[in-house]
Amino acid sequence: MSKRFDRRKFIKTSILGSIGVSALGKDILAESSQVQGKTVVSKPKQKKQYEKDTPKLRVGFIGVGLRGRSSLGLVLRRGDCIVPCVADPEPKAIASTMKMFDDAGQIKPVAYQNGDYDYLNMLDKEKLDAVIISSPWTWHSRQSIAAMNRGLYTGCEVSGAFSLEQCWQLVNTHESTGSHFFFLENVCYRRDVMAVLNMVRNNVFGELIHLECGYQHDLRDVKFNDGKTVYSRGSEFGEKAVSEAKWRTIHSLNRNGDLYPTHGVGPVMNYIDINRGNRFVYLVSMSTKARGLHEYLKGIDPNHPNAQLEWKLGDVVTTLIHCNNGEKVLVSHDTSLPRPYSLGFRVQGTKGLWMDINGSVHIEGVSEPHRWDKQQSWFEKYDHPLWKRYENDAAGAGHGGMDWFLINAFVESAKKNEAPPIDVYDAATMLSITALSEKSIAMGSAPMTFPDFTNGRWISKKPNFGLSDLY
Amino acid sequence: MSKRFDRRKFIKTSILGSIGVSALGKDILAESSQVQGKTVVSKPKQKKQYEKDTPKLRVGFIGVGLRGRSSLGLVLRRGDCIVPCVADPEPKAIASTMKMFDDAGQIKPVAYQNGDYDYLNMLDKEKLDAVIISSPWTWHSRQSIAAMNRGLYTGCEVSGAFSLEQCWQLVNTHESTGSHFFFLENVCYRRDVMAVLNMVRNNVFGELIHLECGYQHDLRDVKFNDGKTVYSRGSEFGEKAVSEAKWRTIHSLNRNGDLYPTHGVGPVMNYIDINRGNRFVYLVSMSTKARGLHEYLKGIDPNHPNAQLEWKLGDVVTTLIHCNNGEKVLVSHDTSLPRPYSLGFRVQGTKGLWMDINGSVHIEGVSEPHRWDKQQSWFEKYDHPLWKRYENDAAGAGHGGMDWFLINAFVESAKKNEAPPIDVYDAATMLSITALSEKSIAMGSAPMTFPDFTNGRWISKKPNFGLSDLY
Repeated sequence: MSKRFDRRKFIKTSILGSIGVSALGKDILAESSQVQGKTVVSKPKQKKQYEKDTPKLRVGFIGVGLRGRSSLGLVLRRGDCIVPCVADPEPKAIASTMKMFDDAGQIKPVAYQNGDYDYLNMLDKEKLDAVIISSPWTWHSRQSIAAMNRGLYTGCEVSGAFSLEQCWQLVNTHESTGSHFFFLENVCYRRDVMAVLNMVRNNVFGELIHLECGYQHDLRDVKFNDGKTVYSRGSEFGEKAVSEAKWRTIHSLNRNGDLYPTHGVGPVMNYIDINRGNRFVYLVSMSTKARGLHEYLKGIDPNHPNAQLEWKLGDVVTTLIHCNNGEKVLVSHDTSLPRPYSLGFRVQGTKGLWMDINGSVHIEGVSEPHRWDKQQSWFEKYDHPLWKRYENDAAGAGHGGMDWFLINAFVESAKKNEAPPIDVYDAATMLSITALSEKSIAMGSAPMTFPDFTNGRWISKKPNFGLSDLY
Repeated sequence: MSKRFDRRKFIKTSILGSIGVSALGKDILAESSQVQGKTVVSKPKQKKQYEKDTPKLRVGFIGVGLRGRSSLGLVLRRGDCIVPCVADPEPKAIASTMKMFDDAGQIKPVAYQNGDYDYLNMLDKEKLDAVIISSPWTWHSRQSIAAMNRGLYTGCEVSGAFSLEQCWQLVNTHESTGSHFFFLENVCYRRDVMAVLNMVRNNVFGELIHLECGYQHDLRDVKFNDGKTVYSRGSEFGEKAVSEAKWRTIHSLNRNGDLYPTHGVGPVMNYIDINRGNRFVYLVSMSTKARGLHEYLKGIDPNHPNAQLEWKLGDVVTTLIHCNNGEKVLVSHDTSLPRPYSLGFRVQGTKGLWMDINGSVHIEGVSEPHRWDKQQSWFEKYDHPLWKRYENDAAGAGHGGMDWFLINAFVESAKKNEAPPIDVYDAATMLSITALSEKSIAMGSAPMTFPDFTNGRWISKKPNFGLSDLY
């Protein structure tokens, strides 16, 4: 009987609310005893190790589009993983993936490409320790839940939730199975973002007061292409388009809210210990009119049917989040207008502030009064130990190297089967911003309260992101 | 019988809702017929000119603290005004004022310094055409109303309202007396702000979508001093302090909201034609905790009683305003933490954006894709005609020269007794942000609707700010 069936049987026979044991087993009970409180009955005497025949972490991939293949490339560079299988309904994605294995001189994976649900066959048939999910947004949570239900250490790409119920389902699945969920928010590992975390923890800014962040990225050539080439200039989206435009753009057509909050909010959550001594309490969102995508399409071909569409997503959505410890977080979403890229970070405390848009820091008593310092000298001084150690390993990895740290953290955490630094509660919190933002806008910017996805455990949970130079 | 009594009599004998005629008379009926709709019965056949014995505009001053004296200095530089009287209960302020007249070689004014209400005696006894009010915030509207009731062309310094009723009272007094109210928002005349207005009107940014502004000014050494010297380091405010700290700081102690929105919002209102084809519809405000002033006082003298106080004003207050034409305005208030000065302007449309914090502009098709231009070349190209013409006259005036343009606009508008470029409806709109922001914060960031102070006339009113190179 395969490992998977053992695990599934165990989960099925466990009473609801008790602990599921993952295939890796290693540290799951330690974490789960925290998760489940006093429901742990006994600890297994022998900790299970990785498969006897191979010490490598067996990582499956669901979704091998551009993003999935970028993560896959980082996993293939490592010596401690093998990728026995991938799932994607898109033949071109599978073909590009197979080429990557060829180029890397590695054994080709089994490809599950027989329609949208073939990933379930992969999860049922393959022996896996972990899975990385990089599919379109509407697939994230159902695939994550399927993977957690099979005891896998589950990594999932970022997005925004469609409902609060969806967030709860992720949390509840983690709690009932004991399977870990790692939310793959890569910007948490950006070098400047981690240097600022180091500054925060060294009290450079004093007590934090006000934070800003967002996703300000002109995505017009991501949302549309000519149906043949990615990042080409064109009017197509949906079925007639290629790559992200195939699935991402319909959200701009149909929804109004902060659809993509995590790249800004993830780092900020680490700065102010959200879910670890602090929490988001309520938010308000306000949207502008929607003009950018319409103007863009008119400029390409005013007679194209898509140039006649009315878009629901306001061009700039602003969200204000009130935190339990009295901080405020301002989150921007701005993806439909011409503009240079900026995540718009601002970290402001009683002693001073950092802003990334002007690349500057001001710290009272150190900087000239009422003057900015260039950020670079501060970043060099407070470079995070993790970056200092692995700078060379990360060189050339996606998004300025930060993806290397993300995948490294995922793999190292999965090998130990330990609670991820960005866990299911963080995921639920970040994801819920989208659903709450849509609600707030629909109700004329009315305040919307965050659920406490930790059911009170945020009060005593301790920070575990970026604490060492390991991962 | 003095001019004043004529005027007062006229106002008293006019039916409510009909037109009061100011001493200057010149263009009042043209404006008032717009204000009052169809209630105009007849036009005077002869337009009254300035006093026969002197063609100069007679300007009284209420409040001659630092700010009042700065405006006074600009009036004294001109050849078309005389200042026959000033009112201020502060002997030191009067003494400094008298010295200014001496230094300028001008006849000293009558000083009304006998307590807080002596300005009423000044308004009743002196022959004035106009008045400039630069008193503490709580005096602004009662003094403005007193001046308008006496038919004076009334200029008042900026602040924020304590209630919506207060805003209505200003509007109603203007409408019932016909006296004009010029809201002295100087940043509307800042050179870059006016260049950007020129860019907006030349459609450089396309259709405007999202705007940001605010008052981000470390006022800690304005809010406190040593009781002897202005801008000194000290723990005192209120009666034991000097200058602004005497009256401004108690608002931070007692109120939580955007207490000072106008320097950001004034320019933005011009960009998006607020009250002239557009209007503010609702806002939400969110505050942070209050730490900055407490930390500051602790750092100076932890044993001073003021270092034990709890401050109501959150260190950073953020307000989002939704506009009738679909734009959003983000307004920041940040005066209690160490930081470099910035009004945080951002003007973003379908073709690109300006941000002042990084001194940059990006315009699609002109700028490199996804790259910023330095703002300077844009500002030179779009320098406002008013600045081009009067650059030399403005040199050396307060706040980088913009105060010269403000006072020039006030005097020229008053000489013609015409509707000011920043009128009582604009004032009420800006002022009301403070009251609405306090309400919203008190209600957990609930949305608060703006009154339509124009009672519908915003739909057809046309822009009149900065239309020429005259004023």
